Amino acid sequence: MVDAVALDIKMLEAGVLNRDRRLLAQAITLVESTREDHRKCSDQIISSILPSTGNSIRLGITGTPGVGKSTFIEALGLEFIKEGHRVAVLTIDPSSTRGGGSVLGDKTRMQELSTNASAFIRATPSNGTLGGVSRNTREAIMLCEASGYDVVIVETVGVGQSEASVKDMVDMFILLVQPASGDELQGIKRGVVEIAEMLVVNKADGHLLEAAKQTQADYQNALSLSRPLHANWTTPVITCSALLHINISKIRESIQGYHQVTLRDDTFKERRRNQAISWMWSDVMDTIGHKLHSSPKMSNLVPDLEKKVSSGELTPKAGSKRILDALLKKTSIGP
Amino acid sequence: MVDAVALDIKMLEAGVLNRDRRLLAQAITLVESTREDHRKCSDQIISSILPSTGNSIRLGITGTPGVGKSTFIEALGLEFIKEGHRVAVLTIDPSSTRGGGSVLGDKTRMQELSTNASAFIRATPSNGTLGGVSRNTREAIMLCEASGYDVVIVETVGVGQSEASVKDMVDMFILLVQPASGDELQGIKRGVVEIAEMLVVNKADGHLLEAAKQTQADYQNALSLSRPLHANWTTPVITCSALLHINISKIRESIQGYHQVTLRDDTFKERRRNQAISWMWSDVMDTIGHKLHSSPKMSNLVPDLEKKVSSGELTPKAGSKRILDALLKKTSIGP
Repeated sequence: MVDAVALDIKMLEAGVLNRDRRLLAQAITLVESTREDHRKCSDQIISSILPSTGNSIRLGITGTPGVGKSTFIEALGLEFIKEGHRVAVLTIDPSSTRGGGSVLGDKTRMQELSTNASAFIRATPSNGTLGGVSRNTREAIMLCEASGYDVVIVETVGVGQSEASVKDMVDMFILLVQPASGDELQGIKRGVVEIAEMLVVNKADGHLLEAAKQTQADYQNALSLSRPLHANWTTPVITCSALLHINISKIRESIQGYHQVTLRDDTFKERRRNQAISWMWSDVMDTIGHKLHSSPKMSNLVPDLEKKVSSGELTPKAGSKRILDALLKKTSIGP
Repeated sequence: MVDAVALDIKMLEAGVLNRDRRLLAQAITLVESTREDHRKCSDQIISSILPSTGNSIRLGITGTPGVGKSTFIEALGLEFIKEGHRVAVLTIDPSSTRGGGSVLGDKTRMQELSTNASAFIRATPSNGTLGGVSRNTREAIMLCEASGYDVVIVETVGVGQSEASVKDMVDMFILLVQPASGDELQGIKRGVVEIAEMLVVNKADGHLLEAAKQTQADYQNALSLSRPLHANWTTPVITCSALLHINISKIRESIQGYHQVTLRDDTFKERRRNQAISWMWSDVMDTIGHKLHSSPKMSNLVPDLEKKVSSGELTPKAGSKRILDALLKKTSIGP
């Protein structure tokens, strides 16, 4: 049995490194699992593929529902493939938090890209836990890199999960917006400036073309008034039509420009260094949370506390204090 | 000095209970602080006001930037006030994660509501930590309730934080959408259905009126095909114009209807019971995270590990393992 598992791990590792899409998908399924034995296997795989990771540009793409993210990612992905790259798309899917399927399960959203031999598309269910999403997505990125994908796109659906946590695992964060009136922009200008390395105004075609140009000017104006994110990079605002493939190559070039600039001035590496630290802390918290729920000794204490807290007999704070007392009293960080 | 602090706590408590808005604001500032001594004071205040909390309906309102959330919340707040209620609005502000100001700092967004004697408006900086936001917002809700606000609206800006965490602290989750074409809805239907107890199509006026009606029909159709969230409540889709105050009273009535239905069938209490448990766990994780960063003994270990992880000498996973080994080796949940 142990041998069979070891064999499976070796097979998955080899499959990932040999660019076998089916085995890559299986490896990602494994890292998404919360089962104790699966976690051990996935830790093993991740640590053995580690030397083959890190060699991609990791793009985070977000935008509100309806802005055309799928169409845009398909167009951008095909554009990169045309230039000889291999593209993986990881989608964080918040719709599956309550279980029972996924809006993104069907790959029909990106029909041309999903059938392209140089592309790999995968939806990660969020399962309602941000920690889980972060771990799963980071490890999926690494698996894709080990499988030879040199452009990894992480898509968030913009409802129900934290863009901030995705920003914390990518090299470049791209915000997709729609053509909108100047007034509507007021509320988000600052927020946008603070997270995005590129703004894309999609749907710049047909009757929305003029509105898109106005939106571009509005954002450019807002950006010009704000402290830039990077010393050597000014967040560009680019209009495009993902549907008609207008300006997609310009966006690809700008992404590559950003990559070059940040490689040269070392902010690329600096960001990944900081992300490694933040990943370490996520893993600490994630593991503690997992152990708190699964350890046999806590499982004597927890159900009683949960009952008392839910009935109002104990406040959440007091319940938390009892768990912490039980957990921490013998540790170096004290109760 | 101890007496002065004790006096201050008593003064804040009394101020909150006596509906003093200035002292309520100060108490919220205190619960937002991460300083050890402030946390102790705020725990004390929260536990002493506890008997005066829980008597509001807690509404979570979200929607993409530009959908008109401020205008909607102002209109809805004034509508509730007209009916004799007192309304608190807590805004989670992701734009301040990088420090240095806030898009929402100026209350000019809700000018009429912010100057109304029955309203209280407050922006919570998210500081980039979801745990912090959850704790701050939960405790701010309780302080507002203790201060006699019986409608508490938690607004999320829809970029950079988790709607899911807000859903976990409110009684009713309302999603604001814009008039949009049928195609654009495809991507979010399921996701929306799974989190919202009410959908509001804003901007149903002028040249968008027809599009708003079509959007309403599209969402109703999508909802009719999905498993409902509640046994006795069907998520309504209501069009409104927050700008022209059209249908705002209908929305207020529907919110009150939901409140009545869920009080009668006990799902209101059930949800709050589950939220208490999830709050307990948030507090556990939040406290551990805080202690890991602030305990003197960990502070010998951590800087060295962070250095090694950021330079690539150690993987994040291996760094995490060392922290966990140091933390957990003597505890009941083992290393």
